[in-house]
Amino acid sequence: MTYTVSIDVMPLKELLDPQGKQVLGGLNNLGMTSVMDVRIGKHISLQIEADSADQARNIAEEASKKLLANPVMEHYEIAVIS
Amino acid sequence: MTYTVSIDVMPLKELLDPQGKQVLGGLNNLGMTSVMDVRIGKHISLQIEADSADQARNIAEEASKKLLANPVMEHYEIAVIS
Repeated sequence: MTYTVSIDVMPLKELLDPQGKQVLGGLNNLGMTSVMDVRIGKHISLQIEADSADQARNIAEEASKKLLANPVMEHYEIAVIS
Repeated sequence: MTYTVSIDVMPLKELLDPQGKQVLGGLNNLGMTSVMDVRIGKHISLQIEADSADQARNIAEEASKKLLANPVMEHYEIAVIS
């Protein structure tokens, strides 16, 4: 069965996020002053062939560790969508 | 009150996603052949000062239209987290 799995890879809280700060400045310049903070990461959607949702999650976990996320600078969250 | 709102900005289905294709090739080269497709977009987390969750969502919608997403190439999904 094919599962859709999403992975959100975000910069660690402890680190600056220059792209997010830039976008925050842009939004404030556009008059959207109620936006207080912006952080920007990656949203990765995978189609995974697996026997169960658990197996699909494990494959996504392995993909995150091997290639998708840099643990020094990023953390990730995995969700099996369907 | 401050709401956390997330926006996922993804390339439209009809369009190629060269970054996703590249990552798919990388995962397959690493032996992860059960991954069938990869698409990569942005995950944006906003802190928004608003009176209600609905108002926070509207502000995120406005931010998406004005700055965060390019409707010609991308679609977006908004979720009010807390």
